[in-house]
Amino acid sequence: MSGNGRSEVEEARAVLKGLMAPVQSGMERMRETVDQQLSEGSPAVRDMTGHVGRFRGKQLRPAMVLLAGEATGNTTDEHPALAAVVEMIHLATLVHDDILDGSKVRRRVACVNQRWDNQIAVLLGDFLYARAFALSSQLSSRLSNHVLAETTRRICVGEIDQSARRYDFELSQEDYEKIAGAKTASLYAAAAELGARYPGGNEVVGERMHTFGWNLGLAFQIVDDCLDLVGTEESIGKTVGADVDDGKVTLPVLKTYAGADEAMRAKIRDLYTMPGIENRLEALWDACDLRPGLDYALERARELIREAEGILSELPESNARSALEGLCSFVLHRSF
Amino acid sequence: MSGNGRSEVEEARAVLKGLMAPVQSGMERMRETVDQQLSEGSPAVRDMTGHVGRFRGKQLRPAMVLLAGEATGNTTDEHPALAAVVEMIHLATLVHDDILDGSKVRRRVACVNQRWDNQIAVLLGDFLYARAFALSSQLSSRLSNHVLAETTRRICVGEIDQSARRYDFELSQEDYEKIAGAKTASLYAAAAELGARYPGGNEVVGERMHTFGWNLGLAFQIVDDCLDLVGTEESIGKTVGADVDDGKVTLPVLKTYAGADEAMRAKIRDLYTMPGIENRLEALWDACDLRPGLDYALERARELIREAEGILSELPESNARSALEGLCSFVLHRSF
Repeated sequence: MSGNGRSEVEEARAVLKGLMAPVQSGMERMRETVDQQLSEGSPAVRDMTGHVGRFRGKQLRPAMVLLAGEATGNTTDEHPALAAVVEMIHLATLVHDDILDGSKVRRRVACVNQRWDNQIAVLLGDFLYARAFALSSQLSSRLSNHVLAETTRRICVGEIDQSARRYDFELSQEDYEKIAGAKTASLYAAAAELGARYPGGNEVVGERMHTFGWNLGLAFQIVDDCLDLVGTEESIGKTVGADVDDGKVTLPVLKTYAGADEAMRAKIRDLYTMPGIENRLEALWDACDLRPGLDYALERARELIREAEGILSELPESNARSALEGLCSFVLHRSF
Repeated sequence: MSGNGRSEVEEARAVLKGLMAPVQSGMERMRETVDQQLSEGSPAVRDMTGHVGRFRGKQLRPAMVLLAGEATGNTTDEHPALAAVVEMIHLATLVHDDILDGSKVRRRVACVNQRWDNQIAVLLGDFLYARAFALSSQLSSRLSNHVLAETTRRICVGEIDQSARRYDFELSQEDYEKIAGAKTASLYAAAAELGARYPGGNEVVGERMHTFGWNLGLAFQIVDDCLDLVGTEESIGKTVGADVDDGKVTLPVLKTYAGADEAMRAKIRDLYTMPGIENRLEALWDACDLRPGLDYALERARELIREAEGILSELPESNARSALEGLCSFVLHRSF
């Protein structure tokens, strides 16, 4: 996970592109569908959806839909649209995640972009959700509506719970995983399940692939939380240390805190909460060694990935299965 | 529309309650369903959904579903749940409407409620949308998913367009009505249509009732825009003059502006935009006579209501039809 900057990221991107090769045409159709859904009559709407580009990322979730379908021998003409729905829901959550609360607006007041203010972000996210559900409603089977409305609800609950547990250093690992799972793993689980069983039937395979997606998604979130403590901004493409600034106590920090004496615990709490600290993450690294906590968290991610790989081994060998195995490895070793 | 304060509002509430009598038990079931949908396992979520109470209002939209069903002889066991979905979508839009942009946060910094910050409002609104679509997905017919996902998209587009046309005094009446229609009338139209034709069939009646709901909803919005210029805060229960503060140029102001000479036009633009004006609405009334513009807007609302009543006259006489006629009258004469 150590970053040598651009070249390593570029290499990782190339690996990722290779993994998506078995579903390349489906991914292309997925992207076309998303673009089409975002091209709306009104110039104001088009102007706004133009901003969605900056949230486009690795597209792992739609790839999961298509690869899970291929790997389980369950491919339909509607899979790319299904993948587009999943991607739009993900984009909506990213856009709404970007909304600033009062204190941040005040802190960043100098660089508030008038065109990209909170109301615009709220409306763009709502528009993406609405588009996703409208497209889902047009599919021939209702399974996607059922699964994705329920998943969206779980994501919201995860975000709400996370927000409620900010600055809570007594959070148990179980509760941390429940929140990270609801917030992140649930959409991976839904993507894998829908890929494997849409438009219906195949419930047993669907359930196994749901668990596969859940494990992979939870590992993804744990690694994400680790990268926020060790990554470089150039490599991960977003602000490092944001979790500490936001009061999110993630697994590596929880573990570090649990192993510390009372004086160190008080110090860690202070570094999260005391006003006027310029770089909280740097101060945290200066105060304590986060590496054992990081090692613990990464070992937990590896364990989840081993479980996910176990499920894959139940499937017949195929290019798609190999690609899913590659995704497992990517999640553990990614630096962005 | 002149307000004598509390007694008049109480009278209006009593009238409204009377109008809902033909669907009283359905409304009760609708409210139970909404409450049930908001009671979620996590304490943090329950804590948050407790805030929804302050957004509860006249519940005209769910009443429309039930009354349109009764009036067209199309009642099913699922109508109360359908009405609950419509109400939750409406609540979600209200919650998201309440999100402050950077400038407002700065202006209201002294009274920012930490518990009720922007992120909470975004998540609560998202949760309401997710709950609405999850419930809709459980209904036996997909019609509600189709109609309501599309309606939600239209509402977002209306809000986006409205935001883009702030401070635009060249807005035509046609564009104003397009925006107000998308933002407000579309959900009334969907409510009336779904009431009349859910779970399917009845397309001709559904279309007529869609138009009925559209006209009534557009009239509602026009009256709302008038109340923002003349109502008292006690009577309408929200801040008067908010549209002027937000740069929304509504029909009565557009009409006033169109009829003014260039000096007065410049004055009106200044009163909307110049920094440091304490009470923009008061300053606007001091500068020009808004009454002819208000009369024009209210005449347009009356015209829309006449069209809506014309559609009702095609239906057989019934208590529900009378109640819908009463709603038409209420929309024109309400003071809150």
